[in-house]
Amino acid sequence: MTTFNITPISLDQATAIQSKIDLKTKPLGALGKLESIAFQLCCIQDTLAPTLSQPTLIVFAADHGIAKDGLVNPFPQEVTFQMVMNFLQGGAAINVFARQHGIALKVVDAGVNYDFGQVDGLIDGKIALGTHNYLEQAAMSRSQCEAAIDKGAQIAEATLQEGCNCIGFGEMGIGNTSASALLMSAICQLPIDQCVGKGTGVVGAQYQQKLDTLAKVQEIHRDVDSDDPIALLATFGGFEIAQICGGMLKAAEMKATILVDGFITTAALLVAQRINPLVLDYVICTHQSEESGHKAMLEHMGKVALIDIGMRLGEGSGAAVAYPIVESACAFINQMASFDSAAVSQPDE
Amino acid sequence: MTTFNITPISLDQATAIQSKIDLKTKPLGALGKLESIAFQLCCIQDTLAPTLSQPTLIVFAADHGIAKDGLVNPFPQEVTFQMVMNFLQGGAAINVFARQHGIALKVVDAGVNYDFGQVDGLIDGKIALGTHNYLEQAAMSRSQCEAAIDKGAQIAEATLQEGCNCIGFGEMGIGNTSASALLMSAICQLPIDQCVGKGTGVVGAQYQQKLDTLAKVQEIHRDVDSDDPIALLATFGGFEIAQICGGMLKAAEMKATILVDGFITTAALLVAQRINPLVLDYVICTHQSEESGHKAMLEHMGKVALIDIGMRLGEGSGAAVAYPIVESACAFINQMASFDSAAVSQPDE
Repeated sequence: MTTFNITPISLDQATAIQSKIDLKTKPLGALGKLESIAFQLCCIQDTLAPTLSQPTLIVFAADHGIAKDGLVNPFPQEVTFQMVMNFLQGGAAINVFARQHGIALKVVDAGVNYDFGQVDGLIDGKIALGTHNYLEQAAMSRSQCEAAIDKGAQIAEATLQEGCNCIGFGEMGIGNTSASALLMSAICQLPIDQCVGKGTGVVGAQYQQKLDTLAKVQEIHRDVDSDDPIALLATFGGFEIAQICGGMLKAAEMKATILVDGFITTAALLVAQRINPLVLDYVICTHQSEESGHKAMLEHMGKVALIDIGMRLGEGSGAAVAYPIVESACAFINQMASFDSAAVSQPDE
Repeated sequence: MTTFNITPISLDQATAIQSKIDLKTKPLGALGKLESIAFQLCCIQDTLAPTLSQPTLIVFAADHGIAKDGLVNPFPQEVTFQMVMNFLQGGAAINVFARQHGIALKVVDAGVNYDFGQVDGLIDGKIALGTHNYLEQAAMSRSQCEAAIDKGAQIAEATLQEGCNCIGFGEMGIGNTSASALLMSAICQLPIDQCVGKGTGVVGAQYQQKLDTLAKVQEIHRDVDSDDPIALLATFGGFEIAQICGGMLKAAEMKATILVDGFITTAALLVAQRINPLVLDYVICTHQSEESGHKAMLEHMGKVALIDIGMRLGEGSGAAVAYPIVESACAFINQMASFDSAAVSQPDE
């Protein structure tokens, strides 16, 4: 597997950056989180004048062995490939929001259980026709897991080499809230019932069945080494989660700003930061998912989501909806007048 | 004063609207607040295909008599006119965010303590050179207050007649968090210390002085009729707050979507809904201000803010930053595919 050489973001110009923010024509701190994001963008790019170039969102899709028998998912597994087709035809939520904000959208078959053949606009990253069912064996082999991380890194690298410096990650995969809950439980060391949410809509007896199934999975794989993120990812993960993990690590290595979406992409980040914690310097957690467990995931990494509007759709949709706020942060630090330039008086001492 | 003939939003197509939302290719309810905003836009416009046309933000600026002696405000009063010049030159936060999102920006002199003469781009709504100091007498006469409400209504009406159907309100006025706190205390029947925040940045002894000053104002005007919103507005208000109040009422009468910003514009809404509670059907409270007291104001009206990113700047800046989320709501209901049109399977029963 690739090694990721991530360096910390630069604090060399921290004082000058903060001063530039503080001298804008506004009360001190009055732009709230826009100020902290502007500061972060400056540090990531080691500049007083950050840019957001060719923002791109990559949706990785893959299937999960567990989803075949419907124990954890109300939607049938075929919805994964159907939604990939919907992405390619422009009709999904992520298409609408990406178009709205001028975000380029890429769709990757990371391992969907469907033979797409040659389809215009679909990036072939297929590792296999879905993972194994972790009720029977590990979701993937270690070498498949490493190949998926490498593939995600390659796809992110190609995107960044095209001129993008702000990259978001989204996913599609029926069953992938279950994989994410299992990864969360292992990495955050939290009981599974604090990690399992309703996903695409399990309630009542269905929810209990999802919980019981995942508890059984944990029992079956109780010997997996929880200090080994690759082992955890291979056992419980999905190909889309592994590719996102690799993509995030490569993006941090290349000093891009990383937009993290909801529960599943945050699970990928949980694994990524166990591989290299410096990735966290580069991420903006864009939204608080309604999926229970997401908040604890973010807390585990010392992160707070930018907005909370009750979304739980995946696809990168929360990242896309929140993107203009990141743009606002970049815009104010570049475009707002200072007290001096606008001849506005500062507070009386 | 004008009477505002506001009709409730239409629920005639409520079932069809909800069904259209539910049949989009996403789990039920997975777009969170985007779904409730889409529903509201549809009801306001009585349609299944809402539009947002020529979104416009109007910033009303005025001065407050109380601000002359600096008891409640760290910034000197002259900052009001200086910031108006900054708006006209395009250097303020609201300019940056309005440009970013294609929101037309209008600036109104509702009563700044400065003689602008003829200035390009400034709308003349001046009632007087600032209000009186309410430590000495009511901020304005009842007829001034009614004239300000009417003027705000006229300005909103002209904007909507130009083809705008989504109107936001912003403000500038050194001292206007104090006016807003006094209005809030009277209307929400909350003690003044639950209504006073740090405004543009009062802390420590300055904060105590602001609080003591406003308690004294309440004592001086203890006989004002708290059931009479015009009397309250005349006693404690500002010309910008009164004009926004009138603008909101007229916008509701004309069935526009109203974007409410932070603490001061919400104080204007508090007064407006006491004049005609139906105005609330038409408003989207765009952001939770960091100014303490704002949350209780919203709760008093049964409203929840769309986003909370720690802003407390005014100018309509929060409304402008949140606007793309309102656009996302409008976009998804118009553009997303349905399960049928995209041939995506629905949940197994």
